[in-house]
Amino acid sequence: MFVAIVGAGNMGAAMASRLLAAGHRLRAWNRSQEKLKPLVDKGAEAADSLLALAEAEVIISMLADDDAVRGVLIRDGLLTAMRPGTIHVIMATVSVALVREIAPLHTARGVLYVSAPVLGRPDAAAAGKLNILAAGAPDAIDRLQPLFDVLGQKTWRFGEQPEKANIVKLAANMMLACAIEAIGETAQLVRSHGVAPKDFVEMLTNTLFAAPAYKTYGTLIAEERFSPAGFKLPLGLKDVRLTLAAGDAAHVPLPFASILRDNFLDAIANGDADLDWSALANVAKRRAGAK
Amino acid sequence: MFVAIVGAGNMGAAMASRLLAAGHRLRAWNRSQEKLKPLVDKGAEAADSLLALAEAEVIISMLADDDAVRGVLIRDGLLTAMRPGTIHVIMATVSVALVREIAPLHTARGVLYVSAPVLGRPDAAAAGKLNILAAGAPDAIDRLQPLFDVLGQKTWRFGEQPEKANIVKLAANMMLACAIEAIGETAQLVRSHGVAPKDFVEMLTNTLFAAPAYKTYGTLIAEERFSPAGFKLPLGLKDVRLTLAAGDAAHVPLPFASILRDNFLDAIANGDADLDWSALANVAKRRAGAK
Amino acid sequence: MFVAIVGAGNMGAAMASRLLAAGHRLRAWNRSQEKLKPLVDKGAEAADSLLALAEAEVIISMLADDDAVRGVLIRDGLLTAMRPGTIHVIMATVSVALVREIAPLHTARGVLYVSAPVLGRPDAAAAGKLNILAAGAPDAIDRLQPLFDVLGQKTWRFGEQPEKANIVKLAANMMLACAIEAIGETAQLVRSHGVAPKDFVEMLTNTLFAAPAYKTYGTLIAEERFSPAGFKLPLGLKDVRLTLAAGDAAHVPLPFASILRDNFLDAIANGDADLDWSALANVAKRRAGAK
Amino acid sequence: MFVAIVGAGNMGAAMASRLLAAGHRLRAWNRSQEKLKPLVDKGAEAADSLLALAEAEVIISMLADDDAVRGVLIRDGLLTAMRPGTIHVIMATVSVALVREIAPLHTARGVLYVSAPVLGRPDAAAAGKLNILAAGAPDAIDRLQPLFDVLGQKTWRFGEQPEKANIVKLAANMMLACAIEAIGETAQLVRSHGVAPKDFVEMLTNTLFAAPAYKTYGTLIAEERFSPAGFKLPLGLKDVRLTLAAGDAAHVPLPFASILRDNFLDAIANGDADLDWSALANVAKRRAGAK
Repeated sequence: MFVAIVGAGNMGAAMASRLLAAGHRLRAWNRSQEKLKPLVDKGAEAADSLLALAEAEVIISMLADDDAVRGVLIRDGLLTAMRPGTIHVIMATVSVALVREIAPLHTARGVLYVSAPVLGRPDAAAAGKLNILAAGAPDAIDRLQPLFDVLGQKTWRFGEQPEKANIVKLAANMMLACAIEAIGETAQLVRSHGVAPKDFVEMLTNTLFAAPAYKTYGTLIAEERFSPAGFKLPLGLKDVRLTLAAGDAAHVPLPFASILRDNFLDAIANGDADLDWSALANVAKRRAGAK
Repeated sequence: MFVAIVGAGNMGAAMASRLLAAGHRLRAWNRSQEKLKPLVDKGAEAADSLLALAEAEVIISMLADDDAVRGVLIRDGLLTAMRPGTIHVIMATVSVALVREIAPLHTARGVLYVSAPVLGRPDAAAAGKLNILAAGAPDAIDRLQPLFDVLGQKTWRFGEQPEKANIVKLAANMMLACAIEAIGETAQLVRSHGVAPKDFVEMLTNTLFAAPAYKTYGTLIAEERFSPAGFKLPLGLKDVRLTLAAGDAAHVPLPFASILRDNFLDAIANGDADLDWSALANVAKRRAGAK
Repeated sequence: MFVAIVGAGNMGAAMASRLLAAGHRLRAWNRSQEKLKPLVDKGAEAADSLLALAEAEVIISMLADDDAVRGVLIRDGLLTAMRPGTIHVIMATVSVALVREIAPLHTARGVLYVSAPVLGRPDAAAAGKLNILAAGAPDAIDRLQPLFDVLGQKTWRFGEQPEKANIVKLAANMMLACAIEAIGETAQLVRSHGVAPKDFVEMLTNTLFAAPAYKTYGTLIAEERFSPAGFKLPLGLKDVRLTLAAGDAAHVPLPFASILRDNFLDAIANGDADLDWSALANVAKRRAGAK
Repeated sequence: MFVAIVGAGNMGAAMASRLLAAGHRLRAWNRSQEKLKPLVDKGAEAADSLLALAEAEVIISMLADDDAVRGVLIRDGLLTAMRPGTIHVIMATVSVALVREIAPLHTARGVLYVSAPVLGRPDAAAAGKLNILAAGAPDAIDRLQPLFDVLGQKTWRFGEQPEKANIVKLAANMMLACAIEAIGETAQLVRSHGVAPKDFVEMLTNTLFAAPAYKTYGTLIAEERFSPAGFKLPLGLKDVRLTLAAGDAAHVPLPFASILRDNFLDAIANGDADLDWSALANVAKRRAGAK
């Protein structure tokens, strides 16, 4: 398939490489051009201009945030350049409000819009092990399925309104952040009572909480190994903001998310912005007066 | 081994049955005597009096709460009746403060005290599948190990100070309650955006959260199946209280536990006291104005 | 002075009337023109077009929110129409971010920008009893002072950066919302213990809390008199959002504001959107299971 | 009147002096006897023993906490020594649960029990400026009124069930702690945006919040003058605990009190236990990364 990708950060690049390896024609664009080099070496076409992406059959967006999407789509004109029948799929984490705003703009132009945010980090993308959360017109998703099968181990469909996939993604990330916070608080509770967090976490992740999320973050927190960061604290805060905004829009109080927000701010204010978001555990530790 | 058990509620009875089946001599006592009947049918001795338990080599307490323990041990004199060298092991969930108070009273009398609260419900006890969290004198735990091997699939040791096992148990229960609350909030978030909680939970528990705790409670919440209760809401509140008290004693702020406390109160105040503690999810739903 | 006012809602109209009564020439504009009628009857000029406001020496904005300000200033071109030396003063509650964004745009055109949000409701404006929180170039504020003296009982200056007045206004409103929530929770606490909230509030507001904020809201809450609304719940939520956003921008955790946010959402989700923001007390009552 | 007082700490001593000055016969007891010296110099009788207090017509308790009350009344036998018709009035802050427990014990002995906690510090007691919150049998309060008139500027009656006065006292203290926290958060919010908390507080306490509570604590927080302590942080935490327990007993969620609890723990864990409870503001400051 002729696929274009806009945004070649860690995640976009991993996905692009995977698609190339599977034999798809891939045209890529990135605001800073040097990021395209490694992809070109693997057979990608570097787009002359953003608008050149519009020639592809499928355009995948993997941009940093809502602003970047608005910039590319609206201000820089990519949406206007897209042709009827093209599929545009945003696979990054963006707000529910953005999707509600731009989906009808696509429809008005005859472009098919699909939301397909993913669970998994760049290494999972490179290994084709993502979990893909998809929502949009079923036939558009059907057409995307061969690409999704290259990128992910499974595609989970959540209906025809694209923003449904986005709310599920935000909810899943909130679940992760809640798990981190819960481990952080309990790790400090047992530490303050003389139990090594490591012993507590080992028991937990081999019994009730024998799940990938807990094994990964439980270990990082028990060993206080917050660097190098797999997912930096400010990105966690960004997602919590989107979650709270989605809750606000539907009048859903989210007390756990409110705690997360305050603790992410505390963490960043106290110098942990470059650490992995599991460093949220430092907040619980610092507040308990532990060194 | 000659084992006595004080407290033959659902959990105590299941444990007693298991020990009997393994060939141990078992003497049981319960405040309401009729609960002993089924155990006697299985070969247990019904203790004539509470103090008759003191003849056993090992005394297991499986009482409802701190007050019940204080009543039996102090007021009704069981502790005074125990002989030097006897092992007393509390396997129920009690407060850290209680253990700190009573452990030295045992030592003063030459009685060995061990804390060994468990993870798992009566059915796990009956099947010998508990996880046992043990702390106390190592040789006392060694002597208990054959019993623990009958009751549990694994014994996790947390050192010589008995209360360390209790803090780990409270922390583990707090983790469960946090998982329930997080699922409850996100389930409502996606529901308010038109996604069926069932679809969200199914995805989650087959990916990042493929753990027993999430499968169990995720399903109950998605299906709103809060009755019959495996563990009633007021028991969850009781444990949260103990956790907050343990945090307080060590000056550990626990913002997630504070939210849990308020939400358990909300749930009980609004009529859900007889439901399973996963009905905490009703609070998130009700607060979002959903029916 | 030749004054223009954009936005003739309850607050803008009261301020305009006051300025007219003091002998100032006043030109007014409002998106729905019929609101201007009563002002014209009092001697105001109804602006033919938004841009006709630019002829005034001072332009006062009293618009509903950030979006309305952006619409009028940027999209509809009022800012471009303003002449060097003109003073533009926003007296409504807007975000810190908006002021940071638009203040330099004014400077670039030689227009003087001042932030001067107010404490007080329309009746206080009509009586010239507002408290005015002002920040911006001192000489611009000096020029505005005669107008402020007509509108307010006192002008409080907070320095040269206009957004400082806005942060103070948001902080003051947060204080009010915190007072409402605190009264709401304690009123329910005493009610659940058989004490009439009225008796509690009467004692409080005649002793430690003998302040206007507490007398006003304490009485409304004790009497559950939430309608007619002096300031509707969704407006309170709007301000809390702006406060949280300002905290976020400076990495300041605001746990009380987070609670407020969730409770405002709860209140609106449960049907109280048309009530006064003191109806936040209904949330505490409902959560305690009281009728 | 022949009055006995048990507990001659700062508060008890100030009240005793005031009663002596008004011409009442006063017999005092304190666990550490040397505290009685200054009172004896003013004409008080130092009780030979605790039980000697039982000869008085009215016994005032001004002890530190529930445990001290239980110790004196039950364990050391003061209650048993009291004669029918005697009035026992606890004027310290104790739990609702304690009052519910001991009030019937008084009734059973024919002793009249009244709860009369106070608002005001030792200097207010010495000046007869307390506000007295009273509940109990009306005729018992009538008999106490002459004493109350010496100690306080006003007596507020809350009905016949003694614990009603205690719940009102706890609610009033929670209001104070909420005011402190709200000032602390907003002071940090404006500080992080370049506004001096002093300027913010000055405006606030001269407008909407022109109340004693805000003037006192606003100034302390703005000037960061947390020592010498008028009321130490751990005492504030003690009262919040009693408030949360009272809420728990009646199933009243108290989210603001939950935040207070965590922040008091944070403050104490981080070394501020000897400071005034207004140092709660340090938590907001520290969490925002400010020095």
